[in-house]
Amino acid sequence: MDLERRQALIDVYRDGLLRDTIPFWCNHGIDYKDGGFFTSLNRDGTIIDTDKGVWQQARATWLFAELYNNVEPRDEWLQLAIRGAAFLDQHCYDSTDGRMWFHVTQDGQPIRKRRYAYSECFAAIAYGELALATGEAHYRERANQAFNRFVDHNLNSVEASSKFTATRPSRGMGFPMMTIATAQELRQSIGLVDADHWIDRSVATIREFHLKPDIECVMETVGVDGQLLDHFDGRTLNPGHAIEGAWFIMWEGHLRGDTNLIETGCQMLDWMWNRGWDEKHGGILYFVDVRGLPVQEYWHDMKFWWPQNETILATLLAHLLTGEDKYAQWHRQAHDWAYSHFPDHKHGEWFGYLHRDGSLSSELKGNLWKGPFHLPRMQYMAWRWLEKDLF
Amino acid sequence: MDLERRQALIDVYRDGLLRDTIPFWCNHGIDYKDGGFFTSLNRDGTIIDTDKGVWQQARATWLFAELYNNVEPRDEWLQLAIRGAAFLDQHCYDSTDGRMWFHVTQDGQPIRKRRYAYSECFAAIAYGELALATGEAHYRERANQAFNRFVDHNLNSVEASSKFTATRPSRGMGFPMMTIATAQELRQSIGLVDADHWIDRSVATIREFHLKPDIECVMETVGVDGQLLDHFDGRTLNPGHAIEGAWFIMWEGHLRGDTNLIETGCQMLDWMWNRGWDEKHGGILYFVDVRGLPVQEYWHDMKFWWPQNETILATLLAHLLTGEDKYAQWHRQAHDWAYSHFPDHKHGEWFGYLHRDGSLSSELKGNLWKGPFHLPRMQYMAWRWLEKDLF
Repeated sequence: MDLERRQALIDVYRDGLLRDTIPFWCNHGIDYKDGGFFTSLNRDGTIIDTDKGVWQQARATWLFAELYNNVEPRDEWLQLAIRGAAFLDQHCYDSTDGRMWFHVTQDGQPIRKRRYAYSECFAAIAYGELALATGEAHYRERANQAFNRFVDHNLNSVEASSKFTATRPSRGMGFPMMTIATAQELRQSIGLVDADHWIDRSVATIREFHLKPDIECVMETVGVDGQLLDHFDGRTLNPGHAIEGAWFIMWEGHLRGDTNLIETGCQMLDWMWNRGWDEKHGGILYFVDVRGLPVQEYWHDMKFWWPQNETILATLLAHLLTGEDKYAQWHRQAHDWAYSHFPDHKHGEWFGYLHRDGSLSSELKGNLWKGPFHLPRMQYMAWRWLEKDLF
Repeated sequence: MDLERRQALIDVYRDGLLRDTIPFWCNHGIDYKDGGFFTSLNRDGTIIDTDKGVWQQARATWLFAELYNNVEPRDEWLQLAIRGAAFLDQHCYDSTDGRMWFHVTQDGQPIRKRRYAYSECFAAIAYGELALATGEAHYRERANQAFNRFVDHNLNSVEASSKFTATRPSRGMGFPMMTIATAQELRQSIGLVDADHWIDRSVATIREFHLKPDIECVMETVGVDGQLLDHFDGRTLNPGHAIEGAWFIMWEGHLRGDTNLIETGCQMLDWMWNRGWDEKHGGILYFVDVRGLPVQEYWHDMKFWWPQNETILATLLAHLLTGEDKYAQWHRQAHDWAYSHFPDHKHGEWFGYLHRDGSLSSELKGNLWKGPFHLPRMQYMAWRWLEKDLF
């Protein structure tokens, strides 16, 4: 990548973050009355559902604290993060069992809990960045507690809480992947004691059970011993998710100077680019079947914003770490397709949901699933990687 | 509708049922080893998942018994229905609580139960038709039992079984609608004693809580007192579902000679045609927002097969009952759009999942959700209505 291209990309990512994405959410997504963040926004930023997703409360809190810690110590960002954490503290825990909710009303009445524990995972990194920003022990304790609950829930959750019977037990990529990313964040923010242990263990799990060199594939869901479950759910691949996991592992390899980890991450990216990139229309498909059969999920061939974000990051990091032209070329393809289809040049930020051919399916800017996370994280990470010339 | 058009439609529906749809499922979807039916079929009928959806086991059983009772007493159809009911009896009930599963393996090991009770609802009509076909008391008892469990589950299910908290209680169209259709079937097959009571009660519920003359809309989900819940879920309309409910009520009006019921059904159709018909591309959209805002479900603008089936039936019945040209015109629009996009002229039957513009999203012929039900029911009902000249 030549210097001119590098500088042009820095401008796109940095300016996109600071002049578009962050202002969009600050202008439209702050609840000054009840605290926390609105993320169910229409194209122009109008709030179309006042309910709050707990994932998004935690992710936005993390983002503002991360920016405060690493970009610029703006008091506005710190205050937003503090208010986000206060909303988490006051409204997002079920006092009967200590678990976090998934969906609450504007003023924090619970609507729904889910059987998995990703609210805890995002809360952990939010509290961790605030501990770093403020030095307050309270946040550090909450971060440790949330991380422990996340891993404990995944390792020890009772069968009864599952919506499936024990007939066909399976293991998913979500838990080890998210454990890696969360432990990386907490190692950096609060010096999480067991971070390396959790990362090693999670990488080992992914290598042992989810990577399939014989078919060159990262399996999203496998049997407990790693066997392919030849049913809809077992065959369904999530290339954007596997590619996100790929850069978590590459990044760990960079931090440790471990080329084996970098190779594993690149291999995951290679395999899932080949399976997920849409040769016909461009962009990363949402779901594909490991044997090329039809997928049962209705939105399988749509182009969501976040798999594109994660693919832009993974291809960029792979290029920066290996110098391989292939990755620079893939990065250009992923970047150019995403930037020619997702940004809303009229009202700012990105659309989230396109049809396979790149036409708009929904004008939503956010909902319980899309908020200030994948896009600004991509812009922030890519900018930092390129500008600081870490490589 | 002139006689020539009428005869042409009879040919399309009858021949489609007897020469295409039924042979497709009989050739590809019968499990001669473990009993019951495979419905997860690829375009050419290849089985791509051996798991069995309980809805589809019951619906296929109903269909074959219905054909045996009303079209022709073919022993093949009776035996398929008997084998389907045996699979339900032996494998689809959870002995610990008497409720039915939703998803089982090929040999009937349970995979998943759901919090609602539509398995029971479809099992009831299946057992009912078999009681009529065979005169066996066993089937009549099972039909009554399944119906009672269905209504009991809906009226008395404990809060703990819900995935939502009690913060925002709601009521859905599904229960009263399915109660009408199920009671109609059981009244005809086993002379269900309380059928009229359950139908009256369900129509009253729909009129009181779901029909909104001020905004000319059938609300799918409302607050317990019928109020609009101004959040994603509360604003989401399901026009194909409301139109299916419309013809259940029109049909009841025809059977009773009750013009008020026919008017209610036509009003529901009028309102939801206006909201659900896609003026741009044709076909009935899956979900639309009551205020025209973006919908949160990703497949909101796709064209699924079944809303088209239900709309063809509702517009046809409305025309036959009222003689209004508007309904003949709508029927022609719905019929022509569906027949120019869904049939698979190479391998038979219909595709299930198209993009908004009518292009193919998935080649699947069936899965846990699509099986031999909406399409053959449409073909059978429309043929019967047209040919028997009931009107």
